[in-house]
Amino acid sequence: AYFLVLMVFVHLYLGNVLALLLFVHYSNGDESSDPGPQHRAQGPGPAPTLGPLARLEGIKVGHERKVQLVADRDHFIRTLSLKPLLFEIPGFLSDEECRLIIHLAQMKGLQRSQILPTEEYEEAMGTMQVSQLDLFRLLDQNHDGRLQLREVLAQTRLGNGRWMTPENIQEMYSAIKADPDGDGVLSLQEFSKMDLRDFHKYMKGHKAASSELVRNSHHTWLYQGEGAHHVMRAIRQRVLRLTRLSPEIVELSEPLQVVRYGEGGHYHAHVDSGPVYPETICSHTKLIANESVPFETSCRYMTVLFYLNNVTGGGETVFPVADNRTYDEMSLIQDDVDLRDTRRHCDKGNLRVKPRQGTAVFWYNYLPDGQGWVGDVDDYSLHGGCLVTSGTKWIANNWINVDPSRARQALFQQEMARLAQEGGTDSQPEWALDRAYRDARVEL
Amino acid sequence: AYFLVLMVFVHLYLGNVLALLLFVHYSNGDESSDPGPQHRAQGPGPAPTLGPLARLEGIKVGHERKVQLVADRDHFIRTLSLKPLLFEIPGFLSDEECRLIIHLAQMKGLQRSQILPTEEYEEAMGTMQVSQLDLFRLLDQNHDGRLQLREVLAQTRLGNGRWMTPENIQEMYSAIKADPDGDGVLSLQEFSKMDLRDFHKYMKGHKAASSELVRNSHHTWLYQGEGAHHVMRAIRQRVLRLTRLSPEIVELSEPLQVVRYGEGGHYHAHVDSGPVYPETICSHTKLIANESVPFETSCRYMTVLFYLNNVTGGGETVFPVADNRTYDEMSLIQDDVDLRDTRRHCDKGNLRVKPRQGTAVFWYNYLPDGQGWVGDVDDYSLHGGCLVTSGTKWIANNWINVDPSRARQALFQQEMARLAQEGGTDSQPEWALDRAYRDARVEL
Repeated sequence: AYFLVLMVFVHLYLGNVLALLLFVHYSNGDESSDPGPQHRAQGPGPAPTLGPLARLEGIKVGHERKVQLVADRDHFIRTLSLKPLLFEIPGFLSDEECRLIIHLAQMKGLQRSQILPTEEYEEAMGTMQVSQLDLFRLLDQNHDGRLQLREVLAQTRLGNGRWMTPENIQEMYSAIKADPDGDGVLSLQEFSKMDLRDFHKYMKGHKAASSELVRNSHHTWLYQGEGAHHVMRAIRQRVLRLTRLSPEIVELSEPLQVVRYGEGGHYHAHVDSGPVYPETICSHTKLIANESVPFETSCRYMTVLFYLNNVTGGGETVFPVADNRTYDEMSLIQDDVDLRDTRRHCDKGNLRVKPRQGTAVFWYNYLPDGQGWVGDVDDYSLHGGCLVTSGTKWIANNWINVDPSRARQALFQQEMARLAQEGGTDSQPEWALDRAYRDARVEL
Repeated sequence: AYFLVLMVFVHLYLGNVLALLLFVHYSNGDESSDPGPQHRAQGPGPAPTLGPLARLEGIKVGHERKVQLVADRDHFIRTLSLKPLLFEIPGFLSDEECRLIIHLAQMKGLQRSQILPTEEYEEAMGTMQVSQLDLFRLLDQNHDGRLQLREVLAQTRLGNGRWMTPENIQEMYSAIKADPDGDGVLSLQEFSKMDLRDFHKYMKGHKAASSELVRNSHHTWLYQGEGAHHVMRAIRQRVLRLTRLSPEIVELSEPLQVVRYGEGGHYHAHVDSGPVYPETICSHTKLIANESVPFETSCRYMTVLFYLNNVTGGGETVFPVADNRTYDEMSLIQDDVDLRDTRRHCDKGNLRVKPRQGTAVFWYNYLPDGQGWVGDVDDYSLHGGCLVTSGTKWIANNWINVDPSRARQALFQQEMARLAQEGGTDSQPEWALDRAYRDARVEL
């Protein structure tokens, strides 16, 4: 049954097929080992339709507007790009607030943002139900019967958390003797001769340094709900005013993620939300989902990113394709230059934001759907954290979660309100949220 | 006094200085020879604030939405670009409606869209109150102390209706011996030696062919107000549904302009609305303007363009810079290639729409202001009609007029409603509109 589902997706979304393959596997694995809370919504009748989602107007790059977010001062929101719809607000946090957040995060303790799940990966690869010929066809995006380096690079998931560069793909070819003529291009013949088990063995045997990962940082989560530190509450209220979304949406969103990048830290370019398939459920609403579905993603309508300190060197946030006329994955990823690589090619990205203590940037990860709700993921929202060349970089992320299914978001809000009422001071929603964000996948 | 006003603008808007110089002159000339109806609004108290202006969401290029504009069929609106916000609707008009519009236009009779106002031009040039050194500084946009061809080309108004190409500027240099070394670049020394009277004489002496004009077409206006042909009324109602603007705005907009481009016809790239200065008044609301101001422009919030026939060859509508990452006039106009030139360089523009009978395209000439009203002119709305290489091209334009001053638009609507009520069946507003659109400038 999964094979059928898979093959449909394979043909619909060639570029993401491997991601999906691995994803399905992991989801299965997780479900069998930990079924999770299969809570079903049994609220009092159908949830009401939610009003249109607020979305700030970009007007044009460089446009500034004055807003009152706090009692004692004005703020200015400046449009940085339209694709993605991206803004900057200097002084969104005071220096004291920045220092406090760092302090709270240090007290709670930070963990590595990414480790390599080697065994799970091998398992996943071992159970892949796609023939080697089909795999070749899927990878060969330009259908020229040859695999260029960029076509392999585009399948980021192949690296299983290790970031792939043109050089280490060629090293791998050389180690498993996949490319005898050494031109970096695999013909169908060369690919057919390759034993995928050699590939898996090589990947497993190669211990990646943290600088070789997709994400090289430490992070923790800080609670912002009722009863949290008054500064954490104040920041949530400020974000509420900024985004002009409903209190329900903002209050039921993820906790604040605080991230530390040491010298040499980075985060290669990525999007904060997964693609929207009919079968996808959101991490934040999965507790009330009626069906058991294989695809789960974090549905982050907006990202609000705070710079908590001034970085001595590097650490810019890069949006490689911001405001490009067209989005074309294959011109983003060339055989020699991969614009997503934030250790090497930040200088070639379209837009870079330099970290400045207290400044917030925020953007929309989804396009509108034209009916006042969430539409498709915005490919242009691709962004990353450039290499920190000197000093330490501290940031925090406030993600605003909205389910692309308006009805499910409504049901979720209704259910959470009911739980809060029932639980009284016991604060059931908080517990539910903790359950939802326990999963490591959400944190990536 | 005008000199002072001018110099302020000169320094604020270098690129448009000559346009302004000529414009002020013409406005003065017009006012002295024909004061026009100096009607003052004396309505019953202040006009109410108007609600937010509707603006369709672009979502992303290629996005399609279904709309019901007429009883018997659906239409699909497709997003062509976000900058400008531009859409296409196949089958907006039926083939019979297209034929009827052409027939009505032919019965009314079409006039040349542009003639050269040679004498007025000479007068304007003769009274220019800018020294030759200042003029050089104004033209020298990149401040390198030399006038490149593209810097002269950028001052379209210098040609006074004649379209300037790199070749005919060099011809002119050669005729008046302005560029002895013939490199197409004028040093300050070469420019200082030049006698501007020779330039004026040359421009006056050179009789331009219609193919050398900015616009080479014939057009007429068809009334769409109450009492008009039922098809004309139906089209106005359809445009009202399409734009989702208020009936007052749509009904008080310009009549339908029908344009015929013969073989060899063209319209070089331009924007449909003038820049918004505090001193600018709109042609459509000038009847109620309290002050006498020197700058007048047609305030066309939207352009709805209908293709009335299938063109045998050429005649595309080109948007040279649609969805460009940045707008830069000087990369639009190069020394050898001027992307605004629709006789030569349509193939290099970012976006071309092929004429197809019944299809409508529409776009917004202004950015939003962030408060639900009209903001700045959208530079990206630059567009033109490509050379008709074979056959005849018929189009029609429905411009939707909105005053960038929300208060003045409100006052205008209130005043027109009052006039309509007073006039009864005498239909005062119609007369007023006819007065407003008599002026030839509006038609360009």
